[in-house]
Amino acid sequence: MDAGVFSQMYGRYTQELGVYAKEEATRLKESGEKVSQRSRTLEHDNGRCAKCKIGPFRWLRFLISLIGEDWIFFFLLGILMGLTSWAMELGINMLLKGQKWVYGRLDSNGFLQYLGWVGYSVALIVFSAGFTQIVSPQAAGSGISEMKTILRGVLLKEYLTFRTFVAKVISLAFALGSGMPLGKEAPFVHIASLCGALLCKLPVFRGIYENESRYREMLAAACAVGVGCVLAAPVGGVLFSIEVTFTFFAVRSYWRGFFSVTIAAFFFRVLAVWYKDEETVTALFRTHFQVDFPFDLKEMPAFALLGIISGFGGALFVYLNRRIALFIKKQKLFNTFLMKKCLVYPVMVSFLISSLLFPSGFGQFMAGELTQNEALVTLLDNRTWTKDGIAEEFDYIGNARVWMHPQVTVFGTLALFTIMRFWMCALAITMPVPYGAFMPVLVIGAGLGRLVGECMAYWFPEGIHAGHAIYPIVPGGYAVVGAAALSGAVSHSFSTVVMVLELTGQISHLLPALIAVVLANLVAQSLQPSIYDSIIKIKKLPYLPELGWGQHEVYNIRVEDIMVRDVQYITLSCSYRDLLNILMKSRLKALPLLKSAESMILLGSIERTQLQSLLSQQLSCARRLQCIKERGAEAKKLLSTESNPPSNNNSSLQTGPEEGHIQVRGHRRTHAFFTLVDLQITDWEARQLDERVNFNNCKINPALIQLLECTSLHKTYTIFSLLGLDHAYVTRIGRLIGVVSIKELRKAIDGSMTLKGVKVAPPMATFRNSSLSSSQNETTYLQAVRPPEEHVTDAPKHTESNNILTYLTFTPKSDIVLSINSE
Amino acid sequence: MDAGVFSQMYGRYTQELGVYAKEEATRLKESGEKVSQRSRTLEHDNGRCAKCKIGPFRWLRFLISLIGEDWIFFFLLGILMGLTSWAMELGINMLLKGQKWVYGRLDSNGFLQYLGWVGYSVALIVFSAGFTQIVSPQAAGSGISEMKTILRGVLLKEYLTFRTFVAKVISLAFALGSGMPLGKEAPFVHIASLCGALLCKLPVFRGIYENESRYREMLAAACAVGVGCVLAAPVGGVLFSIEVTFTFFAVRSYWRGFFSVTIAAFFFRVLAVWYKDEETVTALFRTHFQVDFPFDLKEMPAFALLGIISGFGGALFVYLNRRIALFIKKQKLFNTFLMKKCLVYPVMVSFLISSLLFPSGFGQFMAGELTQNEALVTLLDNRTWTKDGIAEEFDYIGNARVWMHPQVTVFGTLALFTIMRFWMCALAITMPVPYGAFMPVLVIGAGLGRLVGECMAYWFPEGIHAGHAIYPIVPGGYAVVGAAALSGAVSHSFSTVVMVLELTGQISHLLPALIAVVLANLVAQSLQPSIYDSIIKIKKLPYLPELGWGQHEVYNIRVEDIMVRDVQYITLSCSYRDLLNILMKSRLKALPLLKSAESMILLGSIERTQLQSLLSQQLSCARRLQCIKERGAEAKKLLSTESNPPSNNNSSLQTGPEEGHIQVRGHRRTHAFFTLVDLQITDWEARQLDERVNFNNCKINPALIQLLECTSLHKTYTIFSLLGLDHAYVTRIGRLIGVVSIKELRKAIDGSMTLKGVKVAPPMATFRNSSLSSSQNETTYLQAVRPPEEHVTDAPKHTESNNILTYLTFTPKSDIVLSINSE
Repeated sequence: MDAGVFSQMYGRYTQELGVYAKEEATRLKESGEKVSQRSRTLEHDNGRCAKCKIGPFRWLRFLISLIGEDWIFFFLLGILMGLTSWAMELGINMLLKGQKWVYGRLDSNGFLQYLGWVGYSVALIVFSAGFTQIVSPQAAGSGISEMKTILRGVLLKEYLTFRTFVAKVISLAFALGSGMPLGKEAPFVHIASLCGALLCKLPVFRGIYENESRYREMLAAACAVGVGCVLAAPVGGVLFSIEVTFTFFAVRSYWRGFFSVTIAAFFFRVLAVWYKDEETVTALFRTHFQVDFPFDLKEMPAFALLGIISGFGGALFVYLNRRIALFIKKQKLFNTFLMKKCLVYPVMVSFLISSLLFPSGFGQFMAGELTQNEALVTLLDNRTWTKDGIAEEFDYIGNARVWMHPQVTVFGTLALFTIMRFWMCALAITMPVPYGAFMPVLVIGAGLGRLVGECMAYWFPEGIHAGHAIYPIVPGGYAVVGAAALSGAVSHSFSTVVMVLELTGQISHLLPALIAVVLANLVAQSLQPSIYDSIIKIKKLPYLPELGWGQHEVYNIRVEDIMVRDVQYITLSCSYRDLLNILMKSRLKALPLLKSAESMILLGSIERTQLQSLLSQQLSCARRLQCIKERGAEAKKLLSTESNPPSNNNSSLQTGPEEGHIQVRGHRRTHAFFTLVDLQITDWEARQLDERVNFNNCKINPALIQLLECTSLHKTYTIFSLLGLDHAYVTRIGRLIGVVSIKELRKAIDGSMTLKGVKVAPPMATFRNSSLSSSQNETTYLQAVRPPEEHVTDAPKHTESNNILTYLTFTPKSDIVLSINSE
Repeated sequence: MDAGVFSQMYGRYTQELGVYAKEEATRLKESGEKVSQRSRTLEHDNGRCAKCKIGPFRWLRFLISLIGEDWIFFFLLGILMGLTSWAMELGINMLLKGQKWVYGRLDSNGFLQYLGWVGYSVALIVFSAGFTQIVSPQAAGSGISEMKTILRGVLLKEYLTFRTFVAKVISLAFALGSGMPLGKEAPFVHIASLCGALLCKLPVFRGIYENESRYREMLAAACAVGVGCVLAAPVGGVLFSIEVTFTFFAVRSYWRGFFSVTIAAFFFRVLAVWYKDEETVTALFRTHFQVDFPFDLKEMPAFALLGIISGFGGALFVYLNRRIALFIKKQKLFNTFLMKKCLVYPVMVSFLISSLLFPSGFGQFMAGELTQNEALVTLLDNRTWTKDGIAEEFDYIGNARVWMHPQVTVFGTLALFTIMRFWMCALAITMPVPYGAFMPVLVIGAGLGRLVGECMAYWFPEGIHAGHAIYPIVPGGYAVVGAAALSGAVSHSFSTVVMVLELTGQISHLLPALIAVVLANLVAQSLQPSIYDSIIKIKKLPYLPELGWGQHEVYNIRVEDIMVRDVQYITLSCSYRDLLNILMKSRLKALPLLKSAESMILLGSIERTQLQSLLSQQLSCARRLQCIKERGAEAKKLLSTESNPPSNNNSSLQTGPEEGHIQVRGHRRTHAFFTLVDLQITDWEARQLDERVNFNNCKINPALIQLLECTSLHKTYTIFSLLGLDHAYVTRIGRLIGVVSIKELRKAIDGSMTLKGVKVAPPMATFRNSSLSSSQNETTYLQAVRPPEEHVTDAPKHTESNNILTYLTFTPKSDIVLSINSE
């Protein structure tokens, strides 16, 4: 009876342990070498050991370190980015010309022409989406949201691999070549980071890659290089990358970014000059406004109005995009088939948009013929397009002609252009292809600005009188200001001013642009998050929201208001069984280690993997074998006369295919081991589990940051952002009294409402009751909504702890009996 | 015998205690309310209480919080800065014109003219230096170094007061009006911070001022506003301020800075338009280069060379300036009289410089007549000054004429201008007046660039052939590039590119400027610190040096290599006597609190002031009186018949002037207190000191940051910089094993050599042996070099702990006897 119960228990127990161990082993194998990010933060770099390993590169390394690894790294990064940027530019232009060529060749038949135009777009988008899906689904999207998350310390799997690089570059080129209202600025932040990450993996820069701090620093600097290379706007690009990617930024990285982007820009321009036979290096969308009197001070209210309109427009854009994205996500639930194919949606969207843009169709009313760059060039035109409301009849150069239509006034085409492109872009950036929203929004903003400018020119045909002279209104200047304002509003950044001025090559409209952008940001920031934060919410990435301007309550909320008080912990004196229980109960990535349950003094935290390896070491094959050997030696002495024990009495336990393997390796010495039957195994395990945990070889992270109950939310937020934490313990005179994780912070910052519908997965959700609503239901709920671990893992790349290897030898009990056969 | 020994001990003891207490009391009074910065970091803001206090402003505050306190704050800051900047501009221009007027009026007599010219300069400099000295010596210098230190968390006394503001603004105007090669950019960072700090003190913004986190954040943003207002270069200005002031920067503050600077720039321009009747808002030093082909790609090597020369020049400038400053400092030792007057040195310097600049004398060979702005305008001239090496004879507009001299070629005047101004500026910025080095260096750089440009034009008179067309060299473009490169090299910043382009209003030379600045920074950063870091070293401010580009060893040095192992601590079970001993032995601002000396488990740290107040509470008058009353009651019972005890038997103990005061307050009830004689007092004190410390009412800061032995130097540096720490404890599984302070870090980063001669005062030097050279001598040495506390204090402004008040009642023992008279 007793044995029966025990055996029953044992069965369940073994099964539990086995399932648990297998699950853990699988997860470990999946994520390769896995040590949580926090341990990496605290580990000492093992660069020196790494150096010794790679003998042949030693001298090269020495040479590089003589010149300066960093300079060379960023020089190479600059060259690489310049080259990538230039090659993509070339490819995209070719693809865009291809569509026009098809359109031109088929002009004999309207329907064929339409088919050709639309088919071309759809085909490229389908290729882009398909390629992304097949090669690396991580390449889809803008990349800024993901980089923001990565730089916060969360490691997103597969986001910085060569596959992703290839997928991103090729898919982006095709997506942009299709003529959809997409941009390439945001993806270039991702591409630059990819280049940086890949460069780090070169043997010569191994030292950077292997030191986590340096790697992160390099990644941050590489991130800053992104946009600068694309738009030939080095300064604005670096600033933009910084603004949209960081909360806190090291000035050191900013310098590095500038260095690299200068190299990139130079290389890009040199390539352009060589290849295209351009005469020299100039701005991309050069304007020719008068420099002596570009605008009058009395025009300022108009610029300010433009800024405010842009602000509302930017917020609307973000809102619209999120509504569409969430709508599509909901559809997924009852339309799994279509979505699984992943290509139906992009086909639909690209078909709709390219149909509307078809130049002989509806597109003729909204300059659908023009690519984004062409449209921008015309919008920044120096001249006024209307006189007394009627289109001016001067000789338009090239593309500006399309803005005039016999049936619609210039105001009409501009308004149509702005409005149609607005929702098209918001729609287009929900497709599963690499995309950026910056450039299309810039163009839309330029359209809006031009519209306002033309209206001003209509209302004040003689210009605004400033003293003695008459200066006409320059609608192109409004276009510049509008472009900066709308793109600034959508991305919540000020550097669009610099970027636009760099793009146009004229600085004359600096002040109105600044004012408009400031106003646009004021409006947009108070209404909606930036497009990148919005995407973060849609994608449910683990990120802290930005603090708003007016959020004063963050200074008044204390940690004690938001912390979780019911913390699970281990103590110095706990047994392996306690460990097992805690590990099976919670999914925490790290557990606090206390001196004792009575004193509650916090000693530090231990990672889950460490605890798992402790446990597996305790129950490891090696120790089992050891134990068996010892017993065998004893048994030998006792039963030295016996010679033929039953050889396969443990068949009931044989389950794994490993048996044969081990049997082949070992020679049979099974005599005297008949004693090790179920009961003994269980007994041995139970005894092992009852032992006190030996933490000697265990890496204990000191609780690097400890908060006080009365620390303000603002300070907590700052510390979390600065140090990329995902949790911190709250102590009172050394005693652990609570824990705060990113999730609590996010809740507290957003309030309870704003996150509705876009709940982000808390990394430590399972082990706590919210102190505010400390009901059991809450805990259960949190466990229920915890997402699968595949998408977002904190899994790190580097580890020097060989405990992992030990862990991998942790096998379910069925192996034990087999092991005894091989001595 | 026993009593004798005791009495002797007691005497010494009392004296020690008295001296110690007086010293502490004085220090406390001096620094006002004093709580160390670390506690402020951890304190909960007391904003709510503050609100209640200021009743009348409550509704105004509500209104403001409705609109957004921050926006209003930065709007006002912008207005204020615009106004300040504009008013100063006006004043400086008037003063500069004054010198020319004097020079013009006295042209009948050469000597008188000379006297007038030099006397004017000297007089203004003397006034400036004197005014600074009298009103606020803290106003002298650039201010960037100080702000850098303040933003790191160190509170420099008197640096952000209204007196300093007045002194800075007025002295700066006079210093610049004197025509010395000084600039106003760096002081404007200080002025902007002053404006921000003063605005915070307004009752409506009381909430900001009283919350330390918000105050620091506002200060950081205000700092970014500085330079942008001055040069009408909002974008470059904000970036420059950020680059030279921060190590890590919050993007949030950057936005705020942009907002404020936009307001400031707008207001400044509007004022300029209104006042000067300027027609509109344009760049300050507008250039008119051709936009179609500003430079050829083949000119790049020349631009690169200019960058490299500028890099060496920048490093030389910083070196020269430091040599001069240190030389002057040394002279101080044996020339105290001259230095004490503080005006002799500026008189000497300004006399020398203005004599050399005298336009009819040596100045004629180096355009001494021109003010800096005028010189810059001419240097950026669109035309080439030479043809075949001979000065072109076209009609120079205005000031450009002075560059031509019958005896010297244009090359000669340019070279002389560059070289002479170079050392003059390095010399001038050692004067004790408010100064900036940016503008003069910019002008020198422009001179250097022009020189290179004119040489290029001389060597390639037909321009560099680019394909079919001939484009002549534009020496003005070289001047732009040179200006950016030299100022970038001196300040170690990249944003000078943006600033120069904003100043000239043309973006055409962006790429060569970027390349030159990158190269200049590469050279300069590897040779010398920036001018601001150099000044920090000269002034011995407590600041962490920047990490160099090539310092890879920071990734390999561990905390255990640099930490101090011999830490002084207090334990939970220690007595008041231990406390007293430790307080008297060390000057630490905070002491670690351990669970016990055996376990060494770190519970947190307690500030010196807290410990002092604990001690003073234990020995306080109140407790003495309490004790006396109790005894008195006892004595009353015992000796109720006695009526006239000796009234002044304790005269030997009366030392302080406080006696009369207290005697007046209290009425005499001295009966029965004759028992409280020396021995009893000593006895009482001894008993009090033997008691275990009651930490219940003591604020214990948890050791917010704990490092591991194996944390890398780089990570430690980052954490210190990010969080503005000045020390952190090193723990192993909760056990305190060492401490690292800024000083160890600085040592480790700089190596032992580089700081030679410019040793910076360590805030916690006294209590540790360096683990690397753990000799007793080292400790003694450190104690010897510890500087007086007046200059740099970590003393904070806010405290809600009323322990401070208690502390102030801590009085030396001589008072005790007096106290017993007042019941």
